[in-house]
Amino acid sequence: MENIEILGFIAAVLTTGAYVPQVYKTWKLKSTKDISLSMYAAMFTGVLLWLIYGIHYKSIPIILANGITAILIMFVLVLKYKFK
Amino acid sequence: MENIEILGFIAAVLTTGAYVPQVYKTWKLKSTKDISLSMYAAMFTGVLLWLIYGIHYKSIPIILANGITAILIMFVLVLKYKFK
Repeated sequence: MENIEILGFIAAVLTTGAYVPQVYKTWKLKSTKDISLSMYAAMFTGVLLWLIYGIHYKSIPIILANGITAILIMFVLVLKYKFK
Repeated sequence: MENIEILGFIAAVLTTGAYVPQVYKTWKLKSTKDISLSMYAAMFTGVLLWLIYGIHYKSIPIILANGITAILIMFVLVLKYKFK
């Protein structure tokens, strides 16, 4: 793998993995007052579109990154609804 | 522009623009208790790496989307520090 592709892979792991501590924090605090619903709704829609984009170009990194991100954002949205 | 590129463009606007309501909400509430610092720190690092990735491939959409996202995340991080 080229250096730039390794960098892209690390970037994908970071921008997808970033949601894990937020899901954990929200689950632990059971509070979502400071979290913007509009942000997560827009992000969820955007990530689904990136997923379609990735499927069209048969790009495994785009499909994986956005598929996992969609699931993590769904967790935040469910917790936002549950602990509003 | 092909349909799939238009879809990718809408995806980029959504996943970048998603941070605007969070910056606005954080600014208005002056509270960041429910927001994960680890999430935004990881996201900021990841977005900077995507920016380098975009510069390497001279991809204007990747450069623009991640450049603007980096600035928006920086706002959330500054507010997180200010209103902790």
